[in-house]
Amino acid sequence: MNISQTSLGQPIVPSYELAQLLEPVQTELELVEEWLRSNLVDNSPFISELLNQVFKAGGKRIRPALCLLSAKATHSGTGDISRLQIILAVLTELIHTASLVHDDVIDGSTTRRGQETINRKWNDKLAVLIGDLLFAQASVCLSRLMNPEVVGIFGQVIGDLCAGEIRQMRQQFIATLELDSYIQKSIWKTASLFAGGCHSAPILNHCSQTVIGSLKEYGLALGICFQIVDDLLDITGDANQLGKPAGRDLAHGIVTAPALFVLQQKSSASQKLHELIQTRAVCTSDGIAEALNIVRQNGGVEATISLARQYADKAHKSLSILPPSNYKDSLDNLVEWLFARTN
Amino acid sequence: MNISQTSLGQPIVPSYELAQLLEPVQTELELVEEWLRSNLVDNSPFISELLNQVFKAGGKRIRPALCLLSAKATHSGTGDISRLQIILAVLTELIHTASLVHDDVIDGSTTRRGQETINRKWNDKLAVLIGDLLFAQASVCLSRLMNPEVVGIFGQVIGDLCAGEIRQMRQQFIATLELDSYIQKSIWKTASLFAGGCHSAPILNHCSQTVIGSLKEYGLALGICFQIVDDLLDITGDANQLGKPAGRDLAHGIVTAPALFVLQQKSSASQKLHELIQTRAVCTSDGIAEALNIVRQNGGVEATISLARQYADKAHKSLSILPPSNYKDSLDNLVEWLFARTN
Repeated sequence: MNISQTSLGQPIVPSYELAQLLEPVQTELELVEEWLRSNLVDNSPFISELLNQVFKAGGKRIRPALCLLSAKATHSGTGDISRLQIILAVLTELIHTASLVHDDVIDGSTTRRGQETINRKWNDKLAVLIGDLLFAQASVCLSRLMNPEVVGIFGQVIGDLCAGEIRQMRQQFIATLELDSYIQKSIWKTASLFAGGCHSAPILNHCSQTVIGSLKEYGLALGICFQIVDDLLDITGDANQLGKPAGRDLAHGIVTAPALFVLQQKSSASQKLHELIQTRAVCTSDGIAEALNIVRQNGGVEATISLARQYADKAHKSLSILPPSNYKDSLDNLVEWLFARTN
Repeated sequence: MNISQTSLGQPIVPSYELAQLLEPVQTELELVEEWLRSNLVDNSPFISELLNQVFKAGGKRIRPALCLLSAKATHSGTGDISRLQIILAVLTELIHTASLVHDDVIDGSTTRRGQETINRKWNDKLAVLIGDLLFAQASVCLSRLMNPEVVGIFGQVIGDLCAGEIRQMRQQFIATLELDSYIQKSIWKTASLFAGGCHSAPILNHCSQTVIGSLKEYGLALGICFQIVDDLLDITGDANQLGKPAGRDLAHGIVTAPALFVLQQKSSASQKLHELIQTRAVCTSDGIAEALNIVRQNGGVEATISLARQYADKAHKSLSILPPSNYKDSLDNLVEWLFARTN
């Protein structure tokens, strides 16, 4: 389903094609792809092949695109952005991919981007090591940036990614989660890396603290919005479109915004949902179907869309400081694209 | 058993007390401990407690000690070494510990340093994440060094650690391994981190390339020697002293120097050992007992001690460029301590 067409009965946002939004940094994105194709080599052909496979599977390259658009939107000259900005973009994709490879081990996932995961095709051990190797490659990229501030930012980003996963793991099947705690987890899991990329680009461009701060705010708000929409799709999507069964998070005891809003109500529906989670009935197919119905029929979806909208608006506002450009337009429109994305 | 007393029928080396060797950097080692106690904090008390537990379990802190001794031995002034050298020392212990936590997942180990491993006490998922978090803390330390050359070195070191583990995994139950390949794996798994610490210290001291190169050679040779002795102990030790059953590596199909030397012979003993490994008979208690006997009775132990001796000598030689000091003496004597260690 497409949120923009279903949610509150009216289209919320126009639809954008991702390719169109990324067009202003197409040349730079190709350099990123080239880097990922040619620089991930290892003494062992087996490891090189594995590393390549991980990236060949594709992905939208949202994080590199955000870095490159931020770099271009805050670049004072008219020439090309520096080679460092390409490395920054590569770095965000390496960290993202490393964390996906480890997440697949943690979640026992069998497919990712339509391909068998490394843990499935080979084993958990190899997946742990391939993830470590990608983190190490990210460290090498970081060192090439020769900017201690950016190194510090990404050290924190990797820590946040782990903290987010650990918090999620510790909060499984807890039906009394607070919204603040959910937002914090979303920052750690997702928004921290978005923000890291977005505000490191102007740091490398030697921009003012105000510009740097604004792009950090943009990345944070966009990242939180992204995570909220992701969590919503788990509740509203169908298996065919998601490429995984609907309610997969909830069935694993991961309580996200849509369920959280219903749980906070004082109603019999809320009480029933509470019970389904705490007794782990959501792990069964009947239980998860019932839980999804309760969330959908008691305003969980609408409240979540409204929450995502707040962060989307925040993201838009934080861009106001930038001078007009097609890069700024793309950053702006990416917010709506993320908001409207259906997969 | 103590190699120094048994091996070739005569004591090879005098015995040194580790505490005595580390005495010249005792004050600095305490600062490292303090850092590990007080800086590994996280927003979540649960995570902070886990991180602390990992370090409370102890460990010999060989890697930090090597950094500190290298820093002191190449420090031109008479005053204290810089705060950066303490951070470098911390960094090596963080990387070492992160890789141990992930190794325990990979090997399914249940105890480490006499304590239950994280994967055993909690689960594999948490252990993957705690390892990632420690790598991230290492990245933060690296950024504080503000030295792109050292950042590059440690990016490579982490990559090498992974490459070493992956190679080991891919070579399981292969009885036709070459010695070169075994040494390369030992460099990746162990010596790369030793060398990284040893030669980053003089880099931070702004020493000449000759001094830096010599300490890199020292760290590499010492690390290879360390790994060879470790592999020997797996064959010669008994369960009580090792804290694990003897022959554990070989039972997992990991062919190290002692077995490798016997496998290279053209004899019926060699053929039998070959068969025990390739048919995976070494996985059974009878099979591993027979394999250990073959290795012990056909010169595998003696050839391995002689190989370790070559690298010990190399390590000694590479120190000749340093001016006399008690720090240099400790680096020198550490070689013999490692050579003679019994657990």
